[in-house]
Amino acid sequence: MANTVQIVFQPSGRRGEIEAGKSVLEAARTLGVGIEAACGGARVCGKCRVIVETGRFEKLNLVSSADHVSPVGDVEKKFLTAEELSRGYRLACNAFLSGDLVVTVPEESRSAKQVILEKGRERKIEVRPAVKNITVTLPAASLSDFRDDRQRLLDALEKETGLKHLSVDYPVLKELPQILREGNWTVTATIWQEKEVIRVAPGKRETSLGAAVDVGTTTLAAFLCDLTTGEVLAKASRMNPQIGYGEDVLARISYAASETEGREKLQASIIEALNALTADMTEKAGFSASDVDEMVLVYNTAMHHLALGLDPRYVGRAPFAPAASAPLDVKARDLGVKINPSGNVHSLPVEAGFVGADNMAVLLAEEPYNGDKIKLIIDIGTNGEIDLGNKNRLLSTSCATGPALEGAQIAFGMRAAPGAIERVNIDPISHEPRYKVIGQDEWYPVPCDRHSTVQKSGAQGICGSGVIDAIAAMHKAGVISKAGRINAKLDTSRVRRGESGKLEYVLAWAQETAVGKDIVITQADIRAVQLAKAALYVGAEYLMEKLGVDHVDEVILAGAFGSYIDKESAMAIGMFPDCDLSRVRAVGNAAGDGARIALLDAGKRREAASVARQVEFVETAIEPDFQKKFMDAIAIPHAKHEFSHLKS
Amino acid sequence: MANTVQIVFQPSGRRGEIEAGKSVLEAARTLGVGIEAACGGARVCGKCRVIVETGRFEKLNLVSSADHVSPVGDVEKKFLTAEELSRGYRLACNAFLSGDLVVTVPEESRSAKQVILEKGRERKIEVRPAVKNITVTLPAASLSDFRDDRQRLLDALEKETGLKHLSVDYPVLKELPQILREGNWTVTATIWQEKEVIRVAPGKRETSLGAAVDVGTTTLAAFLCDLTTGEVLAKASRMNPQIGYGEDVLARISYAASETEGREKLQASIIEALNALTADMTEKAGFSASDVDEMVLVYNTAMHHLALGLDPRYVGRAPFAPAASAPLDVKARDLGVKINPSGNVHSLPVEAGFVGADNMAVLLAEEPYNGDKIKLIIDIGTNGEIDLGNKNRLLSTSCATGPALEGAQIAFGMRAAPGAIERVNIDPISHEPRYKVIGQDEWYPVPCDRHSTVQKSGAQGICGSGVIDAIAAMHKAGVISKAGRINAKLDTSRVRRGESGKLEYVLAWAQETAVGKDIVITQADIRAVQLAKAALYVGAEYLMEKLGVDHVDEVILAGAFGSYIDKESAMAIGMFPDCDLSRVRAVGNAAGDGARIALLDAGKRREAASVARQVEFVETAIEPDFQKKFMDAIAIPHAKHEFSHLKS
Repeated sequence: MANTVQIVFQPSGRRGEIEAGKSVLEAARTLGVGIEAACGGARVCGKCRVIVETGRFEKLNLVSSADHVSPVGDVEKKFLTAEELSRGYRLACNAFLSGDLVVTVPEESRSAKQVILEKGRERKIEVRPAVKNITVTLPAASLSDFRDDRQRLLDALEKETGLKHLSVDYPVLKELPQILREGNWTVTATIWQEKEVIRVAPGKRETSLGAAVDVGTTTLAAFLCDLTTGEVLAKASRMNPQIGYGEDVLARISYAASETEGREKLQASIIEALNALTADMTEKAGFSASDVDEMVLVYNTAMHHLALGLDPRYVGRAPFAPAASAPLDVKARDLGVKINPSGNVHSLPVEAGFVGADNMAVLLAEEPYNGDKIKLIIDIGTNGEIDLGNKNRLLSTSCATGPALEGAQIAFGMRAAPGAIERVNIDPISHEPRYKVIGQDEWYPVPCDRHSTVQKSGAQGICGSGVIDAIAAMHKAGVISKAGRINAKLDTSRVRRGESGKLEYVLAWAQETAVGKDIVITQADIRAVQLAKAALYVGAEYLMEKLGVDHVDEVILAGAFGSYIDKESAMAIGMFPDCDLSRVRAVGNAAGDGARIALLDAGKRREAASVARQVEFVETAIEPDFQKKFMDAIAIPHAKHEFSHLKS
Repeated sequence: MANTVQIVFQPSGRRGEIEAGKSVLEAARTLGVGIEAACGGARVCGKCRVIVETGRFEKLNLVSSADHVSPVGDVEKKFLTAEELSRGYRLACNAFLSGDLVVTVPEESRSAKQVILEKGRERKIEVRPAVKNITVTLPAASLSDFRDDRQRLLDALEKETGLKHLSVDYPVLKELPQILREGNWTVTATIWQEKEVIRVAPGKRETSLGAAVDVGTTTLAAFLCDLTTGEVLAKASRMNPQIGYGEDVLARISYAASETEGREKLQASIIEALNALTADMTEKAGFSASDVDEMVLVYNTAMHHLALGLDPRYVGRAPFAPAASAPLDVKARDLGVKINPSGNVHSLPVEAGFVGADNMAVLLAEEPYNGDKIKLIIDIGTNGEIDLGNKNRLLSTSCATGPALEGAQIAFGMRAAPGAIERVNIDPISHEPRYKVIGQDEWYPVPCDRHSTVQKSGAQGICGSGVIDAIAAMHKAGVISKAGRINAKLDTSRVRRGESGKLEYVLAWAQETAVGKDIVITQADIRAVQLAKAALYVGAEYLMEKLGVDHVDEVILAGAFGSYIDKESAMAIGMFPDCDLSRVRAVGNAAGDGARIALLDAGKRREAASVARQVEFVETAIEPDFQKKFMDAIAIPHAKHEFSHLKS
C-alpha cells in the first residue's frame, strides 16, 4: 500500500488523504480545490502560487511543516521572490508531498472561469461573482445537539468554506427552519461577498443569476447572466419611463424638487421599469425574478440619484456635489426591486457631478488606465461622456448632447431594434439612397434586376447609428451643405418640403416600410445631430488641450443605442477630431458591458472604486472660449479644423 | 508664560494645548474627554487607565514619547501589571505632562453615566447606549472641494470620533443633501454600535431615545428611555393582542402553522401593539415615534419567533430547536416597527427552546453569574422561568404556569394598574377581608369609627399579587383547606355559591367597587393558582436536585404583572421551597429591567451573549417522577414538605 499524507486546503477547509509523492496541484485537483494553472501543470506559467503553512494545528489535529514537501526548485526560484519564498510561497505544481500539510490558496490563485463578450470583441471577463452557492449537509437537530438552526447552518458553512463571522440576512431566517427540514438537512446557501447569507434553498441549488442594467437617461438596457458560467441568458431593453417627467435630467431634477412626491414618483417609475425588465428576462430564460440574487446598475449621476431616490437638487447646480459617490449596495427590498429580497443592488461609483457610474462602467470595459496608449473614449448618450488618457493620467468630462444620437427626438428615431434603419448610403449623382435594416441581411432597395415588384424592407424608423450614417451620407452626396442645410435645388423627388413647409429627405418610401409612411430625415433632425456632435467634439478638444496632446493613439466610440456606430460616418460628421480611421473602434454599449463585468467579477468593483478616485473631472462649459469652439464644431465636419484622414 | 504641550486623545481625536506639569487626567477634563476615575483623581481606584502611544504621528504633526510624561510611580506599579506597563499603560491621574503626547483611552476607561432603577432597588445601570449622537461641522461643498455629501460627513465624523469605516444606512442618504444645507453644514449624526450612521439631523440634536419592551405571552410592558441620561420618560403596557389567536404559545404556534398567512397575521398583531405602545409613550413624553433610535425586545422563545415572523413550528416540538438563538439586530423598517426606519430592533439571545430572551433579561438584571451566593430566581409569567446557581454553574428551566399568577383567567383578574386589589388580609375570626387598591393609600374597608357611610374603594379587579395574597390569606384564615377547597360551612356571608352554583369568596361588595359588582375569588381561581404555583415549586425542586443543594442563599421573585408580590404570601401558598423570609426578595418586572439595562448599556448585550452560552437548560417535564411531585405541590403550601420558616 502506498504511503499517504493528510492535506488540508485553506480557506476552503477541504481535506483528504493523498498518496505521498503527488504534487500539491494534483492533490488540489483530487479534492476539487480550484487552483489557477494556466499552463495546465506544465510548470511554465507560475500562476499556481500557494502558501505552505507551518506549525501544529490543534483543531485540524495535524502538524504541517515545510519539510513535508520537496525542496524549492529552480522553476519556483524563477517565479517567486526571495521574500515570497521566505513567507512559504510555493508553486503547487512543483511542491511534492512527503508529509501532512496545511496549504493556503491565496485569492489570486483561485481559479475562475472566463467568458468572452460576444460580437468578436476580446474582452475576457473573469467569473468571480459577488454571490456564490455553497451546498452543505448539516447534522440534524436532536435532543443532544440543540443548536439553533442559524448556528447549525453557519457552523456547516464555516467548515466547508473557512468563512467565519458570516451573517444571515433577516428575511432568510424566517423560512430557515422549514427549508433545512425540507432539504433533509442538505441545503444550498447563497453567500454575498463572503459576508452574508442571502438565500438558503433546500438540497442542491445550481441556479445563480444576476442582472446588469445600464440605466440611460433615455433608454434602459438589461442583461440577465448566469453567475456560474458568465453566460448572458437574456437581454431586454425599454424606454426610460421618466421621459414622461422630462426629456433631460435637469427637467427631471426640477420635477423631483418642485412637485409633491416628485422624487418618489420618479424613483417608482424606474423601479417599475427595472422590475418589468427583470420579469421579461427571467421569463424568457425559464426562471422567476426572485431567482436573481444580485443586480448591478450603472447610470449617470442624475439618474443614479433619481433611481435611488436620493435628493438630486444639488447635483444639478454648482458645485454639483452628489449625495453619495462611493459604490453602494442597497438591499433589493429597500428599493422595491423584485429580485431575491435579500439580494443587493450594486451601484458602481460616481466620479463627479456629471460623470457617473455609467462612465465608470465604460472605463472598466476599456481599461484605459491599464496601458500606455492614449485612448479617447466617447460614450454617446443623452449625456455624452468623454475620457482621455492612459495609465499615467486620466481625464473625463461630460457634454449635454441630447438624445439625438440615440435616435430619440428624431422624426423617425427608434431604438436599435429589428426594423431600424442602421446603415445608409446615398448615390452622389442620383441622390438615391440604399439602407440596411436591423434583422434583414439585404440592403434596400435591392437592385431591380433581382426584383420587379415593390420591395418590402420592413423599415420602421432609424436608430442612432442610422441617423449618423444618413447625415454623413447626405453630406458626402451633397444633399446637405457644410453648414448642415438641405439643398432645395437638387433635382430629386427625395428632397421635398414636408407638412410643416420645412425641407426633408425621403430615405424610404411608404410602400417599402412597415409603418406605411415615408421615412424621412428632417432639417430639424440634422440640426439636433449637429448640436450633439459639436458638444462631443468640443469636449474631446478640451481634454486633449488639458492633457497636452495633439493626437490620440486610439478613438473608442461607445453607445448603447447607436448601437455599433459606423466609425467613418462618425468622423465624417465631425464627432471627434481627425484621426487615422484604423485607430478608431466602435464598441457598442460599453457601459452595459462594464455593468456585466462588475456583475460577474466582484474584483472589478474594487478596481472601479480605486479608478473613481484617480480620474480628474474637467468642467468644460465654464471655459471662456467654449461658445466660440462650439459654434465652429457645428459645421460638418468642422468650420476650421482639417480632416486629412477623412479625405484619404 | 507657562510652558505648554500638545496632547491628543484617541479615539476621540480631541486635541489641545495644556500647561506642562498637569496630569493626563486634568488634560482630559479640560478637553472634555471622559475618563473613568471613580476616586475623583485621588489615586486610589486605579480605574483611569490610558495608553501612552509613542512614535512620530505624521497626520497629527507631533512626536509622542514615553519620556514626555513623568516616570511610572508606585501607585501605578500597584494597579498595572508589568506586561501592561511595557505596553504603555499608565494611570491618567499619575502621569504628568512634560512634552507632546498621544494618549489612547481604552474602552474600559471611558466614563459612562450611571442611573439607578427606581423603587429603591440598587441596580446601577451604566449608560453606554448602542446609539450616540455626534455633532460635527463640515466644510461647505465648493468647486475646489467637490467631495460627495456622504464622504464629507464621514470624514468629519472620523476626525471627531476616530471611527473609520462607518457606513451610512441607505434611507439616511436620501435626505442627506438637504439636511447638510439646512443645518448650514452643522449636523448631528446618530451612530449605532460605532458602525453605522442611522440618522442625520440639521444642527445640534439633543434627543436620543430608545424603547425597551418585555413582550409577554399575555401582556406587553414598555419603557421609553432617554439614552443620554438613562431616565425613564414614559411607560405603557397593554394586553398581547395575540391572545385573540390563542391563550398559550402552543395554540398560537399551531395557528401560525395551520392557518393561511397565520404567521403573518400573528406577527402583524404584535408589531401593531409595539407601534401603539411607542406612539403612546412618545406622545406622553412630547416626542414623536420616529425620534426613537433603537428598540430592545425580550420575550420567551415562542413569542420571539412569533414577533420576528420566524417559522415557529419546530420550537414547539422536540428537539425544540429555535430558528435563531443569537442576539439579533433587525432594521425597524424590515419589521414594520415605526421608529426611526434606520434604527434597529435588538433581541436579546434565546437560551433554548422554552427559555427565552426574557429569562436572559432577568439574568442580566439579577446577575446570579457574578457572585458566590446561590440564587433561585423565579420569573412569574404565563410561562414561568426558573434559574438556580451562581458564578460556578447556572441552571434554568421553564414551567407552563398559565396566566393565573399574572391575574389573567381569574374571574376578576386584571393588570397591576390603578383600581387593582393588590393586597388582601382576612380576619381569622370574622373572616372579613381588608384590601388595598393600587392608587389608594388606605386599606378598605376603613374602620367604621372613621366612616359611617359606604366606603368607595374604587376597586375594579384583582392583579396577580392580589390573587396570591388573597389565597394565602384565605388559607391562613381557614376559608380554604390545605387542598384548596373553600369551606362551605363557615358562618359568613362572604362565602356563598355563585351563579354557577360553585363556591366563591366575596372580597369587595358591589357598592364599594368601581364596577358595581361583587368582586369575588372563585373556586376555579384558586385551582388555577394552585396549578401554577405547583409548576413553579416543582421546577425549583428539580433544579435544586440537579445542582445538589438542599437550600438556597437567596430567592428572587420576579414578574411584570404581579407586580410586587408579597413574599410571605408567595411562600405561604408554596410557590417555592421553604426558606428564611429575610432571604426572599420580590423585584417586580426583572425582565423589563433587563431589557432596559440592555437598551442603556450595550456592553451588557455582549455579557448576555456570553451568559446564554453558559446556562444549562434542564427539561423537567420528561422526568419520570414529575407527575407525582406535581400532585404533592398542588396542596397549600405542600402535601409533604415542611415549611418551618412559615410557622415561625
